[in-house]
Amino acid sequence: MRQIKLVLAYDGTDFYGWQVQPDAVTIQGTLASAIGRISGENVLPQGAGRTDAGVHAFAQVATFATGCPMAVENWVKALNEILPDTVRVMAASVVANDFHPRKSALGKTYRYRIYRDPICPPFLARYVWHYPYPLDEQAMVQAAGLVVGDHDFTSFAAVDPERNVENGARSNVRSIRDSQWSREGVELVYAVTGSGFLHHMVRNLVGTFVLVGKGTLSPADITAILNARNRSKAGATAPAGGLYLVGVEY
Amino acid sequence: MRQIKLVLAYDGTDFYGWQVQPDAVTIQGTLASAIGRISGENVLPQGAGRTDAGVHAFAQVATFATGCPMAVENWVKALNEILPDTVRVMAASVVANDFHPRKSALGKTYRYRIYRDPICPPFLARYVWHYPYPLDEQAMVQAAGLVVGDHDFTSFAAVDPERNVENGARSNVRSIRDSQWSREGVELVYAVTGSGFLHHMVRNLVGTFVLVGKGTLSPADITAILNARNRSKAGATAPAGGLYLVGVEY
Repeated sequence: MRQIKLVLAYDGTDFYGWQVQPDAVTIQGTLASAIGRISGENVLPQGAGRTDAGVHAFAQVATFATGCPMAVENWVKALNEILPDTVRVMAASVVANDFHPRKSALGKTYRYRIYRDPICPPFLARYVWHYPYPLDEQAMVQAAGLVVGDHDFTSFAAVDPERNVENGARSNVRSIRDSQWSREGVELVYAVTGSGFLHHMVRNLVGTFVLVGKGTLSPADITAILNARNRSKAGATAPAGGLYLVGVEY
Repeated sequence: MRQIKLVLAYDGTDFYGWQVQPDAVTIQGTLASAIGRISGENVLPQGAGRTDAGVHAFAQVATFATGCPMAVENWVKALNEILPDTVRVMAASVVANDFHPRKSALGKTYRYRIYRDPICPPFLARYVWHYPYPLDEQAMVQAAGLVVGDHDFTSFAAVDPERNVENGARSNVRSIRDSQWSREGVELVYAVTGSGFLHHMVRNLVGTFVLVGKGTLSPADITAILNARNRSKAGATAPAGGLYLVGVEY
């Protein structure tokens, strides 16, 4: 048996998130059945991040153990022939048996895309949050900087204790290395890199930064919200379609 | 009553084409019901081109007559609030009552996108034809040039006589002004402008040019196929998802 690591890109729109569920089409379940069709083995691939329904990935990392003797590079083509075209295996490699895509990760990067023009092209409807209303983007840049460092992100975590147990730690402290809003043409893009993320954390940060952009909150309120450790103090969860898991570092 | 002209962009993936049909979701039907919700009138908007199921548009033109006194520019916002986000009204203006989006058109331009890299990003799956196999692109460029001018396009028309009656003419002669393949990064893009197009004509041209690219046909065979006036001489219909109606000239 050896362990294979896959890098996956997917359009999350038509999936009920990463994690396998009874009676719902998920990325993990779809991948498991494609692997099974190739190797005849019954595996449940493990992922680096449990993306929610509608959330996309440029580079999700997943692993599975297999006794299949096929050359590792052939897994890319073989899986892509079976998987729906909204899920693509971008790369495959053999990794040590003790490698775990989530537990071994040193950091993850997410991006969130907000489309600012009055009319959102139909071809982007699945891929951005269309928000054409006024926003003080400089205030949002300021606010984003305030979450860099080690903080207890309880205020930005879904009230869902079971899912907040990452890396075996029950703490809601996470370490954010980089947190920035920038303009990319008509899009306003949030990029955040950190040690790990709580359930809904990026979307809750985005929803709260948008309240800063609207002037409902001031940038400094972000620090007060962090200190409150209370989900009800932060903004609403931003729509799933704008969010992308763009990379995992090891 | 005045006539309003709309410019529409849509992602055709989830629609059963432009033309209204019983028991199928179409662009024309969806637009008709959105107009009806605003004006209370029962209208059937007319379009410049009857795009097929899965075909997209950057700038379809549609018209409808209305007695609704609303300022014309407000139709854009009002319709976009009702329409699904895969159909967008980009512009609205008042036109003369004798303007007809198809009959008044001087020309139409379509584009067809072929994605050439081995792995097609999941975010483009709905929007391109993924064709990663070898193609002699120079031969395709040559072949495309041979359809410029006035030709009987029977060999490239769906065997569907009812739909080939455009502008009241029963002839299958169409005038092509421009027909070119060009590289846009990892995409190979066909752009064609002409007086009008028969049913499936652009997709049949693309399917035939790809046979030239594969070496199954030589560029000069295109002229022989035109002369044969026989659908069975040309290549298969290229997939709908790669095709876009990009503009209509008046």
